[in-house]
Amino acid sequence: MRIGILGTGVVGEAIATALIEKGHEVRMGSRAAGNEKAVAWAKKAGKLATEGSFNDAAIYGDLVFLCLNGEFALDAIDSIDPSGLNGKILIDVTNPLDFTQGMPPRILEEYRHVSLGERIQQAVPNAYVVKTLNTINYSVMVNPKKVNNGKHSLFVCGNHMDAKNKVKHFLADAFGWDAESFVDLGDIKAARCSEAFVPLWVMLWQAVGSPLFSVKLVQ
Amino acid sequence: MRIGILGTGVVGEAIATALIEKGHEVRMGSRAAGNEKAVAWAKKAGKLATEGSFNDAAIYGDLVFLCLNGEFALDAIDSIDPSGLNGKILIDVTNPLDFTQGMPPRILEEYRHVSLGERIQQAVPNAYVVKTLNTINYSVMVNPKKVNNGKHSLFVCGNHMDAKNKVKHFLADAFGWDAESFVDLGDIKAARCSEAFVPLWVMLWQAVGSPLFSVKLVQ
Repeated sequence: MRIGILGTGVVGEAIATALIEKGHEVRMGSRAAGNEKAVAWAKKAGKLATEGSFNDAAIYGDLVFLCLNGEFALDAIDSIDPSGLNGKILIDVTNPLDFTQGMPPRILEEYRHVSLGERIQQAVPNAYVVKTLNTINYSVMVNPKKVNNGKHSLFVCGNHMDAKNKVKHFLADAFGWDAESFVDLGDIKAARCSEAFVPLWVMLWQAVGSPLFSVKLVQ
Repeated sequence: MRIGILGTGVVGEAIATALIEKGHEVRMGSRAAGNEKAVAWAKKAGKLATEGSFNDAAIYGDLVFLCLNGEFALDAIDSIDPSGLNGKILIDVTNPLDFTQGMPPRILEEYRHVSLGERIQQAVPNAYVVKTLNTINYSVMVNPKKVNNGKHSLFVCGNHMDAKNKVKHFLADAFGWDAESFVDLGDIKAARCSEAFVPLWVMLWQAVGSPLFSVKLVQ
């Protein structure tokens, strides 16, 4: 499958590399083609890996991951020809955090009432935005068994049930997520809640002393 | 031990009743002595139970629980002579939620940057405010074994380590909380994070179809 990855940071690189290892063709996108980190990654990752602009990666992917710093995510989406995402699933991994006011981080002011996930869906109304993976460390995203042998919860939300189901199957197949891990929070509005969880996640990181943890919904 | 309970709602009543059953003397406080619900509760709960104003309950308790709707919590604290809480532990169970804008609930605008827990600590600087129990259903607060045989996490924060330790011991002894359940998030500023978790909790309630759930920190 062809996958577009928007972002060259640790999250984008972890997901891109894990997908190459599963035999997918992956294009890493950045502000402009030729980005130093994207070029270095593609060289190291081998024949299945390419790089280009955000627009190149979005057009390339049958499935697209949005892995940017929340502060810049909408700008990246705005730089894409929206038709390149028509009918495609866009997995939104972003968090709109503001660390400038000290700890704990805040949610960026412009996303306090309407989440970043919702704003992304509004920006590309013909794509199927599924918000997930944003509540765990990047190394756990692609290797959930690093924590509690994979027995923990992953929140999913989005407006399209079929898209959410496809994402669950993809994450199970590509990264080994257990079917019982997925917790469907409802439509994309619920991104307000999963994004608002992340400041607590940061404090839990401090409490645990490692990012290799998660939460498990128990009854 | 003498316990003051500020609030006559389901949370206050559940905690008050459970503490009576453990042999504590409990005074339930409301806006004015003689509150219909508080009088009915005290009559039913027996000899160890009394009722009065918020101030009466605060003065009475060696330990005080704040169990009000977040919207009214600071008003209740303001109605108390602060010296009545000097040197006492005040367990803050409140959440500043705004359900008027539909689901998911928001955090009340005035507590978006500085949490309700912090504002309560500021209002009674000589009390030891410990924020906890606010991230679970009231019936689980007093009977944690209702969920996953008690194996789940309870977030605790506050400025005073000794007060947090006393609260952990009290909750373990009174309600059966497992010592491994407690997750210390740090000082009272972390109440921003545990309060911000509660809109997600509400969406999880919808997803689960029952309030009898919790989250467990796993590594």
